This record gives sequence, structure tokens and C-alpha cells, in this order.
Amino acid sequence: MSLVTVGSVAFDAIETPFGKTDKIIGGAGTYIAFSSSYFMEKQNIVSVVGEDFPQEMLDKLKTRGVNLEGLQIKQGEKTFFWSGKYNNDMNSRDTLVTELNVLEHFDPIIPESYQGCDYLMLGNLSPQVQLSVIERLTERPKLIAMDTMNFWMDIAMDDLKKTLKEIDILIINDEEARQLSGEYSLVKAAKAIRAMGPKYLIIKKGEHGALLFHESKVFFAPALPLEEVFDPTGAGDTFAGGFMGYIASTDDYSFENMKRAIIAGSAMASFCVEQFGTEKLENLSKQDIENRITEFVKLTDFDMVQTV
Amino acid sequence: MSLVTVGSVAFDAIETPFGKTDKIIGGAGTYIAFSSSYFMEKQNIVSVVGEDFPQEMLDKLKTRGVNLEGLQIKQGEKTFFWSGKYNNDMNSRDTLVTELNVLEHFDPIIPESYQGCDYLMLGNLSPQVQLSVIERLTERPKLIAMDTMNFWMDIAMDDLKKTLKEIDILIINDEEARQLSGEYSLVKAAKAIRAMGPKYLIIKKGEHGALLFHESKVFFAPALPLEEVFDPTGAGDTFAGGFMGYIASTDDYSFENMKRAIIAGSAMASFCVEQFGTEKLENLSKQDIENRITEFVKLTDFDMVQTV
Repeated sequence: MSLVTVGSVAFDAIETPFGKTDKIIGGAGTYIAFSSSYFMEKQNIVSVVGEDFPQEMLDKLKTRGVNLEGLQIKQGEKTFFWSGKYNNDMNSRDTLVTELNVLEHFDPIIPESYQGCDYLMLGNLSPQVQLSVIERLTERPKLIAMDTMNFWMDIAMDDLKKTLKEIDILIINDEEARQLSGEYSLVKAAKAIRAMGPKYLIIKKGEHGALLFHESKVFFAPALPLEEVFDPTGAGDTFAGGFMGYIASTDDYSFENMKRAIIAGSAMASFCVEQFGTEKLENLSKQDIENRITEFVKLTDFDMVQTV
Repeated sequence: MSLVTVGSVAFDAIETPFGKTDKIIGGAGTYIAFSSSYFMEKQNIVSVVGEDFPQEMLDKLKTRGVNLEGLQIKQGEKTFFWSGKYNNDMNSRDTLVTELNVLEHFDPIIPESYQGCDYLMLGNLSPQVQLSVIERLTERPKLIAMDTMNFWMDIAMDDLKKTLKEIDILIINDEEARQLSGEYSLVKAAKAIRAMGPKYLIIKKGEHGALLFHESKVFFAPALPLEEVFDPTGAGDTFAGGFMGYIASTDDYSFENMKRAIIAGSAMASFCVEQFGTEKLENLSKQDIENRITEFVKLTDFDMVQTV
């Protein structure tokens, strides 16, 4: 089945208690594409970079089966750049620099070959851009997933609410869920958000795992307890990429299969944080991923032979 | 199998965003006893109260099969009193009053009928008192579990380390694990703490669930996502009581059975927070508990038919 990912392809500069990078390759679209590539032989990206973006990195994405036909390279312009510094607990970070550059006037182009795609993953971008992608697809995909962030709730809530009506599954973190709904309880937040449009909601809680809500059903997946979180950048996008890659490759978006997809996404995210940027995601083997998923199964597996 | 619980039986006054109580019945020993009583027909408590403690409440414990032979009633003295106020997020609280009263010189007495007990749960008390209970048992129980708190790490770390050498399983929260070990990563904290003595460690993460560590094995149990947390007081003790009640009733302290016991403890804790104090824990049915445990099974159950 075919998957289209819309998301930034960008430069990041990251500082953590463990070290510091120069400009490295980042962006939601990049992480999603790398992560989903382990589940799909071919997939498609819609994005934009400047002329400063290294061909070598584009080749790496190509090697992993990512179709770049929908990636615009803007001559005379610069790639989106974000720089941030993580605090000692690695749970909070300060943004040092945000240069929108090519993203400022991003007008997504959907190549003809992407039309008729089965699955669509809208990475974090302006809700207007996300909506325009849905509108430019001649056929509605089977399942549309979307990420967003506090920033859009602050400056473009109306657009965001409009876009939310058109999607199936929203993937956000706990802080974002609380801001979007105005509810502190995640159970109440989930109700309020599903009333805005998406039938499914995934709330990511970082090191505390993720929750999937649908109708009266809830599923919880833990994060893998790690000795060291080296760099959390991109973990949420990697999760989303693994999730959608799994859904698209199995062509099954039942609640039962979404649970498996969340485990797959959580496994991918647990790799992401082990090295800076996309490093770890560039060269995993199927065996690595299978072993990691087995660790998740062991972590949560219990057999309740007797209750009380 | 027989279970002995050592822990405070006390008065609490609690304020949450939902309301405020006068002096109600609290204390680690009370919560542990109520919770474990749903798994054990008979059990034994070691504690102390003042002459101001209501007979009616002691009768409630008796009705639930709790043997009060080891509960000292100190004439002319007052019961331990704690008062606290929860902040709006319910995740943090301020202590308003702590009156040690009878706990100040608590010298636990082990009745002859408690000797030879199979399982021992040491609720949060001074590590010296906890150790004295172990020493006063003529035979070592099969499994000794213990809770403690930051306060003892601050003022009695040497005693605490001595007591830790004598127990099998420590049950503390994430903040306490970090303080005790000096490690932020819970995986590293678990290693450091297990090197202090306990072969098993449970780290409680409140609304984020609980982790069980033993040798190279880890198990994770979620907390039930709740619409409303009405009063978190006693949830940790209720968890410990359900855990030890399950272990003692099944007389099986294998890692596999500890996982089930954690689910049982988590289910009991999810009831505890639904009402003020011990209210909800006084009148549960077996069916209530079975239904709640089934919710936990559903919450985490997935079947990974295909990985990658």
C-alpha cells in the first residue's frame, strides 16, 4: 500500500548534556520517512528544502526507498533551521533559533504519481498547509494521520480546528492534548479532542509511553526504560513514522492493528533517542527492530491466571 | 498464607481541588490492610494509635479480617496526624501539619500469634523501626517488602541502608528512587538500588504506572487512565497492599506472579483515588476488583502477529 508523508526536511543544531552538534539533518518529514521506510519498500514525501541542502542526505533517503518527486528544491533559498538545547533531565528544552526560510511560503505540490495514495501522514506544519494537501488529493486516502503543536494552537486555532475535521487520527503529546482541549485529565482531553473531528487520538507521553483512544476503548503502550536518552529530537516523528509505516504495510487500520502499530512506533522511537539526530535510524536491520519489538512484548506481557 | 503488615494507623486531613475533609482515617498500615484484605481472609497488623482513635474504625478493619492483636492503643496519647493540600494538577502536594504523637516513640510489639508469618510488608516508617520488626521475628518470612520515603533518606540514610540489606523487595516512587540512588535514569537507579540489598525493586510512577526490576528483567504496568483523580492519598500504600495481598494469597513470589501482583495492586490503587481517604476501599466487591483487573488486561493487551 502507498504512503505519502508531508513534513519538514530541515537542518537542526542540538545541544544536550551529552554533547553538541553542528547543523545536522532533521525535520519531521525526515524522521517520519526514515522510520516508516523500515516497514515500506516504497513511499512518498512532500516537502521543501533550499539549495543548501546536501545531495548526500537526499541520496540516503532515496536509498531507503523514499520517493522525492514531491520534494521541492528552492534555488536561492535556505532550508528550514531549528536549534535547541535540552535541559539536564532531557524532558524539557529551549529553542535557541528558528529560521523558517523555505517553510515560510511552503506551497506543497502533489506529483501525479502520488495521487490515489492509501495512507497520508501529515507531519507538524501549519494547519493550512496540512489542509491544502488533503484538498489537493483527488481521492481521500483510507486513513489520514496528523501531528501538530502548541505553536499552531496559539496562532492558528481556527485553521487547526478546520483541519481536524478532515482527518482520522491525531498524534500529539500530553501537553498539546491539554492545551488543545483545555482539560487536564487526559481521558477528558481525549473526549473533547475526538469531538473536534478525529475518530482516533494518540497521546504521546515521552518516557511514559503512549495512549490510544477510540470510542470507549483505550490502549496503553509503555516506552522502553532506557539507561540513557542521548537525544530526544525527532522521537515523536519517528514514533508517527513507525506507526503509519506499520499501518500502511499491513493495510489494516482496525483498533487491534493500531495497537501493534503503536508498539512498532514505540520501538522505532526507542532507537531514535540512542544517538544524535537521525544517525541511529539510517542503518537499522530488520533483526534490530524485531528484537526491540520483542523487548516491548516482554516488558508488558502478563498472564492473569487468577484475579482475586 | 499469613501476612503481617507494619504501618501507621492515623488521622489525615486532606484538601484537594474537589473538596476538603475533617480528620479522617488514614495511615500506610490502614491502606495496606484494607487493600490486602480483598486477597486474604486473615491478616495481621503491627501498629500504634492513641486513645482518641475511634473504635468504629478498628471494627471496620476487624470486619475485613484484620487481626489487631499487634495494634497498641496508648492511653493518654494521641494518634499520628497528617494534613496536606494537593495542588491543581493533583501531582504535587504540600504538607500542612505533621504531628507524630504516638509514632514518636513507636516500639513495635510482635504478638506470639504473628510469629512464623510467611510474608511481611513494612509500610513507610523509620528504617530503625522497620529493622526492629525483622529482628523480632523468630523466623525470617519468605518475602519481606518495604516502602520508605525521602524524609528517611534525608535524616537516617545509614539506618535505611542497613535495613535495605535485610529485605527482598523495595517499593518506592520515582522521585525517591532518584534520591536514593543519585541517578536520574530509572534503569540506572534500579541497578544502584538493587546493589544496596533488595533483589527486587518496584518503582511507582503514579499516573504513569509502575516498573518492576529483577536481575536483567523489567516489567511495566500502566496506571488506569481515569477521568478524575479525586484524592491520591494512600494510593501508593493501596498498591503495596494489593501487591502483597496477591503474593501472599497465591503463595508465589516468582517474577511471573509478581507481574500479576502489580496489576492487582494497580487495580486497587485505581479505586483508592476515586474517593476521599479509605472510603472506596471499605466496600468493594470481588466483582468490582475482577472487572477492574479486566480493564487493565484490555488496556495493555496486544498480539504482535507481524513485526517488521
